[in-house]
Amino acid sequence: SGKLWGGRFVGSIDPIMEKFNSSISYDQRMWEADIQGSKAYSKGLENAGLLTKAELEKILHGLDKVAEEWDKGTFALNPHDEDIHTANERRLKELIGEAAGKLHTGRSRNDQVVTDLRLWMRKSCSTLSAHLKMLITTMVERAEAEKDVLFPGYTHLQRAQPIRWSHWILSGAIAGNPLGVDRKLLQKELNFSAITLNSMDATSERDFVAEFLFWASLCMTHLSKMAEDLIIYGTKEFSFVQLSDAYSTGSSLMPQKKNPDSLELIRSKAGRVFGRCAGLLMTLKGLPSTYNKDLQEDKEAVFEVSDTMNSVLQVATGMISTMKINKACMENALSPDMLATDLAYYLVRKGMPFRQAHEASGKAVFMAETKQLSLSQLPVKELQSISPLFSGDVCQVWNYANSVEQYKALGGTAKSSVEWQIQQLRELLQRHQE
Amino acid sequence: SGKLWGGRFVGSIDPIMEKFNSSISYDQRMWEADIQGSKAYSKGLENAGLLTKAELEKILHGLDKVAEEWDKGTFALNPHDEDIHTANERRLKELIGEAAGKLHTGRSRNDQVVTDLRLWMRKSCSTLSAHLKMLITTMVERAEAEKDVLFPGYTHLQRAQPIRWSHWILSGAIAGNPLGVDRKLLQKELNFSAITLNSMDATSERDFVAEFLFWASLCMTHLSKMAEDLIIYGTKEFSFVQLSDAYSTGSSLMPQKKNPDSLELIRSKAGRVFGRCAGLLMTLKGLPSTYNKDLQEDKEAVFEVSDTMNSVLQVATGMISTMKINKACMENALSPDMLATDLAYYLVRKGMPFRQAHEASGKAVFMAETKQLSLSQLPVKELQSISPLFSGDVCQVWNYANSVEQYKALGGTAKSSVEWQIQQLRELLQRHQE
Amino acid sequence: SGKLWGGRFVGSIDPIMEKFNSSISYDQRMWEADIQGSKAYSKGLENAGLLTKAELEKILHGLDKVAEEWDKGTFALNPHDEDIHTANERRLKELIGEAAGKLHTGRSRNDQVVTDLRLWMRKSCSTLSAHLKMLITTMVERAEAEKDVLFPGYTHLQRAQPIRWSHWILSGAIAGNPLGVDRKLLQKELNFSAITLNSMDATSERDFVAEFLFWASLCMTHLSKMAEDLIIYGTKEFSFVQLSDAYSTGSSLMPQKKNPDSLELIRSKAGRVFGRCAGLLMTLKGLPSTYNKDLQEDKEAVFEVSDTMNSVLQVATGMISTMKINKACMENALSPDMLATDLAYYLVRKGMPFRQAHEASGKAVFMAETKQLSLSQLPVKELQSISPLFSGDVCQVWNYANSVEQYKALGGTAKSSVEWQIQQLRELLQRHQE
Amino acid sequence: SGKLWGGRFVGSIDPIMEKFNSSISYDQRMWEADIQGSKAYSKGLENAGLLTKAELEKILHGLDKVAEEWDKGTFALNPHDEDIHTANERRLKELIGEAAGKLHTGRSRNDQVVTDLRLWMRKSCSTLSAHLKMLITTMVERAEAEKDVLFPGYTHLQRAQPIRWSHWILSGAIAGNPLGVDRKLLQKELNFSAITLNSMDATSERDFVAEFLFWASLCMTHLSKMAEDLIIYGTKEFSFVQLSDAYSTGSSLMPQKKNPDSLELIRSKAGRVFGRCAGLLMTLKGLPSTYNKDLQEDKEAVFEVSDTMNSVLQVATGMISTMKINKACMENALSPDMLATDLAYYLVRKGMPFRQAHEASGKAVFMAETKQLSLSQLPVKELQSISPLFSGDVCQVWNYANSVEQYKALGGTAKSSVEWQIQQLRELLQRHQE
Repeated sequence: SGKLWGGRFVGSIDPIMEKFNSSISYDQRMWEADIQGSKAYSKGLENAGLLTKAELEKILHGLDKVAEEWDKGTFALNPHDEDIHTANERRLKELIGEAAGKLHTGRSRNDQVVTDLRLWMRKSCSTLSAHLKMLITTMVERAEAEKDVLFPGYTHLQRAQPIRWSHWILSGAIAGNPLGVDRKLLQKELNFSAITLNSMDATSERDFVAEFLFWASLCMTHLSKMAEDLIIYGTKEFSFVQLSDAYSTGSSLMPQKKNPDSLELIRSKAGRVFGRCAGLLMTLKGLPSTYNKDLQEDKEAVFEVSDTMNSVLQVATGMISTMKINKACMENALSPDMLATDLAYYLVRKGMPFRQAHEASGKAVFMAETKQLSLSQLPVKELQSISPLFSGDVCQVWNYANSVEQYKALGGTAKSSVEWQIQQLRELLQRHQE
Repeated sequence: SGKLWGGRFVGSIDPIMEKFNSSISYDQRMWEADIQGSKAYSKGLENAGLLTKAELEKILHGLDKVAEEWDKGTFALNPHDEDIHTANERRLKELIGEAAGKLHTGRSRNDQVVTDLRLWMRKSCSTLSAHLKMLITTMVERAEAEKDVLFPGYTHLQRAQPIRWSHWILSGAIAGNPLGVDRKLLQKELNFSAITLNSMDATSERDFVAEFLFWASLCMTHLSKMAEDLIIYGTKEFSFVQLSDAYSTGSSLMPQKKNPDSLELIRSKAGRVFGRCAGLLMTLKGLPSTYNKDLQEDKEAVFEVSDTMNSVLQVATGMISTMKINKACMENALSPDMLATDLAYYLVRKGMPFRQAHEASGKAVFMAETKQLSLSQLPVKELQSISPLFSGDVCQVWNYANSVEQYKALGGTAKSSVEWQIQQLRELLQRHQE
Repeated sequence: SGKLWGGRFVGSIDPIMEKFNSSISYDQRMWEADIQGSKAYSKGLENAGLLTKAELEKILHGLDKVAEEWDKGTFALNPHDEDIHTANERRLKELIGEAAGKLHTGRSRNDQVVTDLRLWMRKSCSTLSAHLKMLITTMVERAEAEKDVLFPGYTHLQRAQPIRWSHWILSGAIAGNPLGVDRKLLQKELNFSAITLNSMDATSERDFVAEFLFWASLCMTHLSKMAEDLIIYGTKEFSFVQLSDAYSTGSSLMPQKKNPDSLELIRSKAGRVFGRCAGLLMTLKGLPSTYNKDLQEDKEAVFEVSDTMNSVLQVATGMISTMKINKACMENALSPDMLATDLAYYLVRKGMPFRQAHEASGKAVFMAETKQLSLSQLPVKELQSISPLFSGDVCQVWNYANSVEQYKALGGTAKSSVEWQIQQLRELLQRHQE
Repeated sequence: SGKLWGGRFVGSIDPIMEKFNSSISYDQRMWEADIQGSKAYSKGLENAGLLTKAELEKILHGLDKVAEEWDKGTFALNPHDEDIHTANERRLKELIGEAAGKLHTGRSRNDQVVTDLRLWMRKSCSTLSAHLKMLITTMVERAEAEKDVLFPGYTHLQRAQPIRWSHWILSGAIAGNPLGVDRKLLQKELNFSAITLNSMDATSERDFVAEFLFWASLCMTHLSKMAEDLIIYGTKEFSFVQLSDAYSTGSSLMPQKKNPDSLELIRSKAGRVFGRCAGLLMTLKGLPSTYNKDLQEDKEAVFEVSDTMNSVLQVATGMISTMKINKACMENALSPDMLATDLAYYLVRKGMPFRQAHEASGKAVFMAETKQLSLSQLPVKELQSISPLFSGDVCQVWNYANSVEQYKALGGTAKSSVEWQIQQLRELLQRHQE
């Protein structure tokens, strides 16, 4: 019979293939979107004269009943329901009879799949957007409350210059701000205000999925950065912050441990989310145009990423809002060598070109190290051996609060600048209020 | 001495490390942006009273000289120039003396790097945008010229329904249309109309790079799909299209071969471009905030992807514009079974619910296969054994041109609809004219 | 209280964090491995004098009871069971009392996690290996049965030279042959014959996971290639193969369609599987040494990839074994220009250097095209105008079977060579029989 | 003419396409492998009677001349040399005339490409292997020299238990040990001891490339972990290690900074290398079998990754060998709470089940925190309020050196165990000596 494969199955379809092909186990999450889409389509059919008024009423009523069953958890799946679209249509037919067969006149399942997914994502993006706003709000509130705390700014994880703690908080809030992208998704992709230009493209194009997955990847990259900072700031050696017990766990072996599991999980999800984005793009690569079953991979990716982002944003919000800071440790970490740039500026203000001043300040740092003094303890006489421009007023350099206040330019770490940032973010949040 | 590593190097810096650390071999491409940025910054310094008018003039003149040397190819790199910023400042100092040392007062190299890259990308995106418009224009012109050619539309690479060849062309032009994203990049990221909100974020944030790489990846995914279609359409078995010799190569072994190398290379670049995007995101993951040297990875990624996109878009344009289509083969590939959906619609118009009509048409297909007839050759009497709704007027179904003309909805494959798509794209191109 | 986050939760742990942190929903799949590992560890404790014989008996008996509950589906999860290890230990304590508290003396949960995963993967790899052998066996059997069918070999999807159908089948079987890698995994990673060299490394190292995910990615890349070939060979235009109904599906809209869904799903899974591999590596990147919670990402990746591979390998086996080939279409696709290389060899055998012969044959191809003849129809006199070496015996070139028989070198497409390949693969399968 | 694309080019090939198609700019790195392969192939031709002895001599002599030109840098590329294979054959013909045309009789360029790449990689892997051995040797030597230094072991970046510094070093040396994989590559893939089983598979299969790229990715993941640890250990707050100036750089703005650029670059390359691996796999996904031009992407990936690994391994070796450790800071970081596990074991040895002992020790930690004492300062009386099993001998617990010495099991942190690890690695290095 040309069939080498005997015995394992006898019917017309390999049961393993049936399961491999089926998407009902995950796409049932779209039941509401599917019914919403079908109701809209049936109105279109009536409008086009393909359904009578009575048939339309029957269908709409039936669809409401199906929805009710899903909502109450009484919808009974049938082993042959391969996807949510088939399941809903099968159930509709049981409820209202042959009229159900007219529901999808001239509509392909590929249309249904893509429409349902867009509708589902519209709702999901709206929830994500709310969680995101809550996270940014929390960060802005903390920044407002703690704007008088100074601590070291780091580059390359080396102490650089004194900054306000609020400046750090806002760097996270801004960097991770994808409100714009999110809006774009909502507006451009999901509200259907525009008509798809080309029918071939409409069923195969998954840009809205790819862009959602990439937005999530980029957002997670920012959150992984915030998590990394806080994990380091929370080590015994730094002791800048302490997570609340609600976001930590203990060790099964070492009684003294309190581990920042929430931060590590946030950091780890950047990999998972990006993996889904990478996977989808690889699946799309080299596909012929129009619908191919490969596109079925889109939904599980969207669902998993959506769930992950929901958890991550809420946990991040809770973690940020309950974390304690240790002001004393933060201020103790400030050291006079972090004012070496200010020392250079002191010389610049006295007329020295910056590159020379930078070098002179570097010599002072080296001299202090050699003499095992802190930079601020170097006598003026010693400084004058480096440059005659140094005089008694150099002592005014050694003040962290003054140093920080210099950076009044927009985006800087002066109090007024930090307040401006807070204001900007509040306005941004306001604009995205619906 | 605590040094276990003897002999290989004696100076203060390992020469392999020096090379590993250096970026001059590739970042010299940004020489123009670097000088442009430095000129703007020096004006800011004069404005702030940190440079005199005379010093400013000297610096601007000196920077113009440096630019002239780069332009003429006479700029001589010094082995210790680790990056373009150091090289330009070193040369400026040779030309104008100590005043050069004031140029970057209060400006970190990290600022310079990120500003230069944004400036370079602004120019590069503008070129890419032009190439893209040329590609879309070419596709629109072909679509206009060839709108009377019909051929099979495929889903799952199985013949589905007759469509216009222009409908296929436009599906590529639309799907691959990233003009909007491109504009957004240009407007939001690169024209600096907005001020960076937070100084810590400004030097470490690389969203504009990541978004550019992702735009390119998504664009390449669309082009890989177009390439895949054309490779298949160009097989002997399909014979729908023939590449011009300008975009094909022969075989070193088989004299009769003509290979679609241009299409295969386009398809392959989707992997390369996405690899760069994946690599950058992995590099960013888990970095602490502010500048870390890891961020140096951004530039080679941007340069390679920019070069690749430039080549791909131009080759695609040339390939599309010179490719021949074989109208006879395309029309011969249309077969009556592709009108099975029309046959179902015939019954729907006579009052049968769509699901029943679909089943009836399926029975007709099966009957024709069994009798080894084409679907259109089935006698009306036989059809009536399936449904009494069939009558003599069924013969009107067997007309490909009529079938295609049914799809007059926006985005469909009717002539008017294809013309509307052409019009939409022309207007889009018009709007992006500068 | 330093707590800005009010109201949502009152207990000591945020319930969303609890869920985010918990792994029981998926790691319960490892219940058997966890009990197996605990039984082994408790024997070690008794051996070290840390458990009495009686305590050991109690623990072993208790663990068997726990296993029985899992097996029967009666194990009741408790809302505070955060992972399978906690759940099993909690249940053990309920069953045997305080002695359970001694079970993990000196053992960290991180040890347990990694050991359990290794044990689970050992079993899973063994199943995968069996499925893989079945797939290769099926391909070898088909290759044996159909070794007399000739069809075009393609490069660049252009017809190249005639080959045996079996040669194509075996190219898939060989390329996708990861038996060696699999064995290595089983032997090197999972049978614990070697001792982990360093305790810090042991809990954080996930090479065995990364390598498994990469093996799967590479295997899927090969299967995506096979699927791509068969999708193209199954188009109406090629008509070389026809999938059985068991591995195809119909269209909801177009009655005549039969879509190769099984092949498209196989092709698509290459993206999913690789996405998991990419995700894990990104999660691992830049982690500090030893255990970090980020490593929890490993298990869902392994489980999903393992499930996917299980389905893919079984569906591929069924699909390959039931697919029909269309010998007539395959042989009709052979055309005389595919013997142009043979024509060049004809001249080489008469003493002409290969590059000249290649050119001469190319001229003959061009001459035939111009005269609208097939290559084999060119009169000898015409050929002689290209080279005087042509004579009447050139007619012997035009024989596909002879052409194929030339490639007797190992790995070639001659019957003897194909038989040798079959033999090699049978021996390989034999060697991996356990 | 069917050609819409006017003006830009007039010849038969678009110059942009020519450049897009050409690989000579990078594949000329394989000149030596190409000549080596051609010499071997020509001997095969003579053996098969397709070349005379004299022709063979002429060809071999000519190829040696071509090699000499490459070696001396006098080989002049011709604008039409599209790849190294064409260039070498073109030059050979100029040198020895028509006999050159016989060189590749019956050999496709695809064969040449893949053979050359395998030969080039064999050499490259051998160099990489030597660099890797040097890195591991350096780590082993440091581990031997510094085995008496104790410092905190961390999990989740929280202080866990005291360990030997050498134990950390060896965890890196072991984790990153890909000597086995490397050997496998050399042995299985590149020494050609085995014959390729199937000719179709031979030209299209790129497993050896993918596996090399994945080995590099995994190796870089390990090195990124080592870099991350050292960046953190090098912060002011930790102060455990200090990089030599040879592997650090200063700041252009802040005179006091010394940045660990070498470590950050190493960490960043994990992204780049993996990006190439991801890119190649995406390029391979869904390709039809046999050669497609897409495969040309393999070489630049291999070259870039090979260069990157060469730099990374050498810089890592230099950095590790010159880095200073700060013994005092490391030992000061040890604190009595890190012996809480030992305190639990103390109770276990007195007969308490581990879970109870863990809880009792946890109570002691909490009591010490409450009383603002260090754990070792808690009076025995207080401890006895937690468990009557505590007595005066508990003071023996508070000894870091003793604590470390407990872990004598293979792989542990006791001196004997660390020495055993050193021994194991020395033997491993010995076995890989050639």
